[in-house]
Amino acid sequence: MSTFTTVAAALKGEHATGSQVTVKGWLRSKRDSKAGISFLAVHDGTAFDAIQAVVPSTLDNYESEVLKTGTGCAVVISGELVESQGKGQSVEIQASAVEVVGWVDDAESYPIAKKRHTFEYLRTQAHLRPRTNTFGAITRVRTTLANAIHNYFHDNGFNWINTPIITGSDCEGAGELFRVSTLDMANPPRAEQGGVDFSEDFFHDEAFLTVSGQLEVEAYCLAMSKVYTFGPTFRAENSNTSRHLAEFWMVEPEIAFADLNDDADLAEDLLKHVFTRVLEEREDDMAFFQQRIDKTVIERLQTVIDNNFERMDYTEAVDILKNCGKKFEFPVEWGIDLASEHERFLAEEHVGRPVVLMNYPRDIKAFYMRLNDDEKTVAAMDVLAPGIGEIIGGSQREERLDVLESRMDAQLKEELWWYRDLRRYGTVPHAGFGLGFERLLNYVTGMENVRDAIPYPRTPGNAHF
Amino acid sequence: MSTFTTVAAALKGEHATGSQVTVKGWLRSKRDSKAGISFLAVHDGTAFDAIQAVVPSTLDNYESEVLKTGTGCAVVISGELVESQGKGQSVEIQASAVEVVGWVDDAESYPIAKKRHTFEYLRTQAHLRPRTNTFGAITRVRTTLANAIHNYFHDNGFNWINTPIITGSDCEGAGELFRVSTLDMANPPRAEQGGVDFSEDFFHDEAFLTVSGQLEVEAYCLAMSKVYTFGPTFRAENSNTSRHLAEFWMVEPEIAFADLNDDADLAEDLLKHVFTRVLEEREDDMAFFQQRIDKTVIERLQTVIDNNFERMDYTEAVDILKNCGKKFEFPVEWGIDLASEHERFLAEEHVGRPVVLMNYPRDIKAFYMRLNDDEKTVAAMDVLAPGIGEIIGGSQREERLDVLESRMDAQLKEELWWYRDLRRYGTVPHAGFGLGFERLLNYVTGMENVRDAIPYPRTPGNAHF
Repeated sequence: MSTFTTVAAALKGEHATGSQVTVKGWLRSKRDSKAGISFLAVHDGTAFDAIQAVVPSTLDNYESEVLKTGTGCAVVISGELVESQGKGQSVEIQASAVEVVGWVDDAESYPIAKKRHTFEYLRTQAHLRPRTNTFGAITRVRTTLANAIHNYFHDNGFNWINTPIITGSDCEGAGELFRVSTLDMANPPRAEQGGVDFSEDFFHDEAFLTVSGQLEVEAYCLAMSKVYTFGPTFRAENSNTSRHLAEFWMVEPEIAFADLNDDADLAEDLLKHVFTRVLEEREDDMAFFQQRIDKTVIERLQTVIDNNFERMDYTEAVDILKNCGKKFEFPVEWGIDLASEHERFLAEEHVGRPVVLMNYPRDIKAFYMRLNDDEKTVAAMDVLAPGIGEIIGGSQREERLDVLESRMDAQLKEELWWYRDLRRYGTVPHAGFGLGFERLLNYVTGMENVRDAIPYPRTPGNAHF
Repeated sequence: MSTFTTVAAALKGEHATGSQVTVKGWLRSKRDSKAGISFLAVHDGTAFDAIQAVVPSTLDNYESEVLKTGTGCAVVISGELVESQGKGQSVEIQASAVEVVGWVDDAESYPIAKKRHTFEYLRTQAHLRPRTNTFGAITRVRTTLANAIHNYFHDNGFNWINTPIITGSDCEGAGELFRVSTLDMANPPRAEQGGVDFSEDFFHDEAFLTVSGQLEVEAYCLAMSKVYTFGPTFRAENSNTSRHLAEFWMVEPEIAFADLNDDADLAEDLLKHVFTRVLEEREDDMAFFQQRIDKTVIERLQTVIDNNFERMDYTEAVDILKNCGKKFEFPVEWGIDLASEHERFLAEEHVGRPVVLMNYPRDIKAFYMRLNDDEKTVAAMDVLAPGIGEIIGGSQREERLDVLESRMDAQLKEELWWYRDLRRYGTVPHAGFGLGFERLLNYVTGMENVRDAIPYPRTPGNAHF
């Protein structure tokens, strides 16, 4: 009797040596010794490492099949679990049967057959790259991060709100919008002035992909007290950088009866919690990222976990930056939006741990952020982390109807009638923030390009697969 | 010293009677007695029930504020937690302070002030409806269901894969597509034949909203062994029914080295697990749905939990339907796609518990479903549940390249080159299914219209909020 096991379970010692096991997976590599033994490294996605199967030439299909396998072949291997002779592996399988389930058609053509590929090349093979060491590890860490986020919120009494992806609102101003339509673009129905008659479109009006679920989740916050979104958001910016995706996932919590300090507390607690979970649950993958991608990555997470976040006013930060004696590419004056170089100086050089910058000039921030008593700043915050800069952006929301309306133009007021209702009926102080999930994943893994942090990246010129 | 508590924690007895507590929330109702006492029912979204605060007229702001409050006002109430005199409540608060945080501007205009509203009316107040009993309960049950699904998969070694929302593929054929574009629709760039030149669009080609993440998640399945998607999907069908949304959330697991029976096992195990979690975690909300929405709803879930699902071939089901003596609106012949009346007869009357129908005629099913040896049927399955009909649809996927290609036309082959690659390099038997999340939520709660199962429903003519 052979027990089916995953590679992870076998490597973690969940089966006694001497027991008969069966693993199912794909060959990461194969080596044939002159002594008539083959060594097959089998991965199944459950752990960073493959398990080694030692295959003797005495198997019936050794010559006819085993010798002909190679990287990428799908196999089912049964045998005795034994202590490994090789270094770095606890156990291996002394194979008594090898079934080849799926062959590789022409090994030369297998796009990821060779061991080393650039990340750029692998993006063109998005359907096969999860079979590589790096992207297998990214996939598992992504899953753990997401699960840690969902459970952090669930265990703290938050409701997960699926805010809409398609929205009729084009006014939040967080970025360029994608239009969603079923009209025939070559020959759309025309309005009187020659424009398009969107009343004939699917939604009887113009519709777009959401840039943020914040406004809609606020409505749920003011009913359920603690809520969050975790879903895809979209920006149609023509930015070909390592930090921009046209489609990315965002986490946006929102808490009622809360001010900016509560918001900062939540951000700090969330990050500490999820980083702790990742270090515990994905020790194998994190060891790989540390070794091969970024030597500081575990220390970086541990620093976040172990230290209180510094809280600092924007105004104080500007003074520090002006007086630090450092020459910046972009000069610093009160009123500017800080650049990445400024943020990283503050977090990395000046403080040496995460910093929550608070109370930004009103003129560089969105209309819904709460006006402070000085009337020059709003209760906004950015969480700056060493090694990446801004990782979270949030604010206390303007809960006073008259102040809110004074910062909206006529069109905005009309379109957001329902948002204003929230301040008319039982308004309370509330706050929230946005956390870009792919940037978080890059921070955790040390990967540099967000295109490698999402299974199928969407960027200008690319909606392939 | 007063301890902040949620309504849920107070009602569940997490604080001793006699202790000083503070709750923050909104008034569901208020009653003023002639004896100079007011009874305020405060909800905060954490539990189905509100907590009652008994407010004596001796409070400083009793006349000036407390008497003027009403449904929807935001309050912070402190006082002693005492055993309740009223029926149906374990504890109440003997208030020593009431702070009114947010008033209701003109109670007459508060759109949900009255106790009874139709669900149809409440859809026009999607920003306020979570404050009602019913939609608060739906929100909590939705959260619990989603969390149970994520944790079921996580605890069983599945990776959560965020398949793309925007896709260049228009060929899966699961339904009508929404186009995604940044071109000026009134004046798009023209191709030579007068059509639109999509090479100038954001993605340099036509792009659409996804109808399913299945094909893309298969690629991850064949690397990670067990994966699932849980995200929004889109259908541009002009269907104004209680079962259709233009935007809905779908759960799609995919397992490697698995056949149709493994797929059915997974579906059965998943449903039993999540229904058990909901009954445990949301006892209060489920009691409400049972009492006010559908008297069979708890029994229905318990039936699914307690019984093995019957497995039946399509061909056998057709024989049963033809010979059962019942008159159906749509006549039954081998080869038809079963209608809801047939599915419900099988699950409700013939078997009396969930049925997994398997092996459907190839001609009514998608190209990627595995052809059976009879060459007339494919390894597809539908899970039919009493009270709703089809709740899950899935299949074993065609893993043999030649058979797969024989069911694809030239255009499909070209567009899905990468999908065919998966059969060329280490192909293995694999299977999966799709579970519509809003339909699941309706099944659990007894709600009839999927527009009430998602925070902001998108339907023909409606992308409001």
